[in-house]
Amino acid sequence: MASAAIVGATGYLGTELLRVLSYHPHLTVTQAVSSSHPGESLGDLSPHLERFRDVDLVGHTSAVDTDVAFLAQPPGQAMQVVPKLLERGVKVVDLGPDYRLRSGEEYARVYGQPHADPSHLGEAVYGLPELNGEAVKRARLVANPGCYPTAMLLALAPLVADGATHGPVYVDAKSGSSGAGAGLSTTSHHPEAALTVTPYGSPTHRHVPEMEQALRQIAGSSPPLVFVPHLVPIVRGILCSIYAAPRSGDTAASWSELLAQRYAASPFVHVGPVPKLPWATGTNRCYLSVQSAEGAPVLFSAIDNLGKGGASQAVQNANLMFGWDESAGLAHPGFGV
Amino acid sequence: MASAAIVGATGYLGTELLRVLSYHPHLTVTQAVSSSHPGESLGDLSPHLERFRDVDLVGHTSAVDTDVAFLAQPPGQAMQVVPKLLERGVKVVDLGPDYRLRSGEEYARVYGQPHADPSHLGEAVYGLPELNGEAVKRARLVANPGCYPTAMLLALAPLVADGATHGPVYVDAKSGSSGAGAGLSTTSHHPEAALTVTPYGSPTHRHVPEMEQALRQIAGSSPPLVFVPHLVPIVRGILCSIYAAPRSGDTAASWSELLAQRYAASPFVHVGPVPKLPWATGTNRCYLSVQSAEGAPVLFSAIDNLGKGGASQAVQNANLMFGWDESAGLAHPGFGV
Amino acid sequence: MASAAIVGATGYLGTELLRVLSYHPHLTVTQAVSSSHPGESLGDLSPHLERFRDVDLVGHTSAVDTDVAFLAQPPGQAMQVVPKLLERGVKVVDLGPDYRLRSGEEYARVYGQPHADPSHLGEAVYGLPELNGEAVKRARLVANPGCYPTAMLLALAPLVADGATHGPVYVDAKSGSSGAGAGLSTTSHHPEAALTVTPYGSPTHRHVPEMEQALRQIAGSSPPLVFVPHLVPIVRGILCSIYAAPRSGDTAASWSELLAQRYAASPFVHVGPVPKLPWATGTNRCYLSVQSAEGAPVLFSAIDNLGKGGASQAVQNANLMFGWDESAGLAHPGFGV
Amino acid sequence: MASAAIVGATGYLGTELLRVLSYHPHLTVTQAVSSSHPGESLGDLSPHLERFRDVDLVGHTSAVDTDVAFLAQPPGQAMQVVPKLLERGVKVVDLGPDYRLRSGEEYARVYGQPHADPSHLGEAVYGLPELNGEAVKRARLVANPGCYPTAMLLALAPLVADGATHGPVYVDAKSGSSGAGAGLSTTSHHPEAALTVTPYGSPTHRHVPEMEQALRQIAGSSPPLVFVPHLVPIVRGILCSIYAAPRSGDTAASWSELLAQRYAASPFVHVGPVPKLPWATGTNRCYLSVQSAEGAPVLFSAIDNLGKGGASQAVQNANLMFGWDESAGLAHPGFGV
Repeated sequence: MASAAIVGATGYLGTELLRVLSYHPHLTVTQAVSSSHPGESLGDLSPHLERFRDVDLVGHTSAVDTDVAFLAQPPGQAMQVVPKLLERGVKVVDLGPDYRLRSGEEYARVYGQPHADPSHLGEAVYGLPELNGEAVKRARLVANPGCYPTAMLLALAPLVADGATHGPVYVDAKSGSSGAGAGLSTTSHHPEAALTVTPYGSPTHRHVPEMEQALRQIAGSSPPLVFVPHLVPIVRGILCSIYAAPRSGDTAASWSELLAQRYAASPFVHVGPVPKLPWATGTNRCYLSVQSAEGAPVLFSAIDNLGKGGASQAVQNANLMFGWDESAGLAHPGFGV
Repeated sequence: MASAAIVGATGYLGTELLRVLSYHPHLTVTQAVSSSHPGESLGDLSPHLERFRDVDLVGHTSAVDTDVAFLAQPPGQAMQVVPKLLERGVKVVDLGPDYRLRSGEEYARVYGQPHADPSHLGEAVYGLPELNGEAVKRARLVANPGCYPTAMLLALAPLVADGATHGPVYVDAKSGSSGAGAGLSTTSHHPEAALTVTPYGSPTHRHVPEMEQALRQIAGSSPPLVFVPHLVPIVRGILCSIYAAPRSGDTAASWSELLAQRYAASPFVHVGPVPKLPWATGTNRCYLSVQSAEGAPVLFSAIDNLGKGGASQAVQNANLMFGWDESAGLAHPGFGV
Repeated sequence: MASAAIVGATGYLGTELLRVLSYHPHLTVTQAVSSSHPGESLGDLSPHLERFRDVDLVGHTSAVDTDVAFLAQPPGQAMQVVPKLLERGVKVVDLGPDYRLRSGEEYARVYGQPHADPSHLGEAVYGLPELNGEAVKRARLVANPGCYPTAMLLALAPLVADGATHGPVYVDAKSGSSGAGAGLSTTSHHPEAALTVTPYGSPTHRHVPEMEQALRQIAGSSPPLVFVPHLVPIVRGILCSIYAAPRSGDTAASWSELLAQRYAASPFVHVGPVPKLPWATGTNRCYLSVQSAEGAPVLFSAIDNLGKGGASQAVQNANLMFGWDESAGLAHPGFGV
Repeated sequence: MASAAIVGATGYLGTELLRVLSYHPHLTVTQAVSSSHPGESLGDLSPHLERFRDVDLVGHTSAVDTDVAFLAQPPGQAMQVVPKLLERGVKVVDLGPDYRLRSGEEYARVYGQPHADPSHLGEAVYGLPELNGEAVKRARLVANPGCYPTAMLLALAPLVADGATHGPVYVDAKSGSSGAGAGLSTTSHHPEAALTVTPYGSPTHRHVPEMEQALRQIAGSSPPLVFVPHLVPIVRGILCSIYAAPRSGDTAASWSELLAQRYAASPFVHVGPVPKLPWATGTNRCYLSVQSAEGAPVLFSAIDNLGKGGASQAVQNANLMFGWDESAGLAHPGFGV
């Protein structure tokens, strides 16, 4: 067994990492860090995670000396600790945004603070295994993609790479409330959230630069993107509805075929009928579908934002980094209801 | 007081009509028709509609002789009874689709049955008062728009009329479950609906021909439309997110200004911040907003599908047909939460 | 028209007061106070409350000189301002708890702070009009009941007064999330609230002393009460399920008959079939039902916690204090769905 | 590997059985029966259950010859096939009610039809492993308890057995909508269910005779039970709030201690803080808590109705019947959110 540390163990992504790793065949969590609950016990905070009942939370990463560390922290924190972790020989999967953008200037523009560790930006590998898996295998620092980019890129990147779209691409994303995290906000206050659909963050959403960079890297170029996330009153799940003009001659059927071929060997990406989000809940799976609306192909992509959009994808990346089967510990199916 | 009949009084739209008319200053419901509950009492079926406690449901429209009849029936039923109602001098507001399309051939193609009363298709007025109110005032037969077309047209028609968009328009609509009506279906079964977002009906959605016809009539032409409705786990409300390329030089601000001017005199259409659906719940109001996403203007339109998208718009149409203030009985605001 | 001030105009109860009063025939809101949003405009905070679009919020009550003031504030604030309001001749309906308990010592024990205005505790009238309406008519200071006591007392008080129960009474209450107010909390965070039912506050719930005092006053005595509120994932509505041993010979039918007689003349309390919460949403209505479970009568009571459990009951009290019809402005029915 | 058949494979319990068994270490599903979808493929019906992608559904049980059969059928069907299955040497876990009651007369009274296989009623073992596990180990026919009895008995039976309660016991149960199954009904129609809490089935609920019989068997006697189930707008989960007068001297603390001792060796029943239903979602776990309300102890019991209340408890029973670790394949924790 390799040892793992979870940094940010009490947020939603950290808790999901603990849940997923509670039955991993090769990884065992030996350290858990929480700056907000130092000295408390996971058994008190998350009584359902029985395997970690007796794990005490430490307040800082200085003692982390595991084989791998999963960082699930707000922007700006990972870049403070990654250099030391790498120096100590700890492999790192960062679930936050600090190492997703290749350019420190871009990071500063998007996140409003200078990057504290620009020297590792070039080394960090964008951890979308289906599209970038070979690089992940060789990485010691993986930047786990955001939940929205994961859902969107798995659907769109193969089409863009093939030249199957032209003109702008409109991504209308619907996300459950867990995507905004455990931090309290009016938008996520139950009385405000439960009876409505809330478009948000349109003007300056942080995921667009990540999407564009990934499309350029993976698909060679990025079309103009219009990305509008909406909060819907579910807890887990993202559905992206993606609209773009098809290449002349292309149809829903040809797009579907292209995606099916692209993911034929992938254990986690499925191309088929209109997806139900509960198929993906708690899993590392992505369900893609291409339907025809008034003759135009429309793309749907469904994931669990905490699963394939976060914690389980991080574990998939770790599996590749250690040379294990990428499905290790991730094979369980989702709920039907 | 003028007298009103509700035909289809036990469906969601019929019940909403009773609710709205329970405090109308000029209209009083004297007849209620239900083919599914003939002989039953509204007091038993809808105990909260106290004013109608002693109204017994009749099974057919043959005895309807009110000043106005509101028809809230499935496709194919209104066209069987409208000729006789008009003959008897009853004004008609049809909340179903039978008189929305101008062409009997188009109706047959979309609804899969020949039109039984093509002679009145030319006379029927499309009842979107903000865009077609003068014609409504002179009408004796009004085709109340569908809920999706209402939300979409109020946002888009002024822009199309002004030439402010070019190329295809993508309408991503999110609707609460009441929009599908009281009829049971797997899609609306709570365990299937509550944890997901379901795109549906994409290939052959019946509202697109209605939208295109209305745009041609109101705005002079229709752009190519890609319309994808999604079921979201709320009960009342439609949010349309509308994506289109702007005319060169146009911005979110210019679109917003154009809409604000267009609806400056309208008591029911408001242009402002990103809307919350509960503002519209139970009302005849439509909340429009134009936001900027990566520099592109994005349109949002929010209504209550049973209100402005159905029953209260039908009452607004009746108000105009009788020469009353169009706001009569419709002034109450929505819930904040 | 009489003039009204809303103090605490931006909380859920304050906003609901504005909504209800936006169509009241005798009351017009001329002042709105918010300590959290002084100087802001209601039009910006609540765009859907159009009638108050141009009302600016003031930060304190010193200028309040309306005919009546509705106080919708956290515990401990009303008692600071009520003496001056009464002195100025302003009638007061306090929606908070400061004047519900008759004893300053009890208040200090329950709310953890001494009462600042004990001299008016004896004068304050407990504003449950169906059970205490004559006193309300003569009051200048009314303590509006809490939402839970309202639902529970309307069901239970007539039975206790008649001796129809014996032994302890168990009240299992289910409340929507708006009952906890607009203040952010982990319990009301959508991801934590949406998929569960949360019993809360069991040990020291503040409403029990209020319930017991009211039962002693209205019904002559109070049985031992076990009261357990649960947060359920809806926004508006309280359903109380009440369990008690019946007097020998009593049945569900005899309890139902007793309640029906008690409320025969009440426009707002209905005794009938198992209620649906949406019947009560946005209204001043209470729906009671007695069902038989394994031979034992079980009581159900349904209200809107912001309506009959708050804002609309406050308006009902004001109607009585001014000598108007108690239904003035409160006649609209709830939603079926 | 032992072979398993799922009879009723397309209902919610059948699908959950497939999900749970998709990663069981000792059981492999080789046959799936569905009378409603004969000849169809599980891959089409439940695309997320990838392991069963190529399993075709057969329409009847005549060919079932596995080591164990899980029957997840409506009342009245299992008793038609159990004799033949037993004759063929197939162990049976029946998730329906046919073998829960010991008396054919009682069955006929409760389910409205004579029992077709009364000769096996005496042999069938009530499959609540924590309270009846030794008998399960020796059984070839296990009657899996209902979801409500499971939640209620795990909390109450040890207390009744110890004499820790006196007088009537009130069980106020809140259940998610999956408990009513995949069959369409108005009560489970999303627009009717999503905004309310619905008490149902009070007069003749079928689970009470099962609860009383089990209490007599397990605890020696049954107190008078008043059981009222409520539908709440969640999908998975049951929370039982249980009210009873304590034995003189007993408190919440003493009850909690008694339960903690009783379940000290149980891997699936936990006694601790007020539970969150998502802790139990998708698992075989039961979370118990005793809180104090106005000095009275109140019991809470939380399970997943499809998990410990159905499919995973059936697997736990099978584990015992085959002599395996009772936790085999059931160790995964629930979701935090």
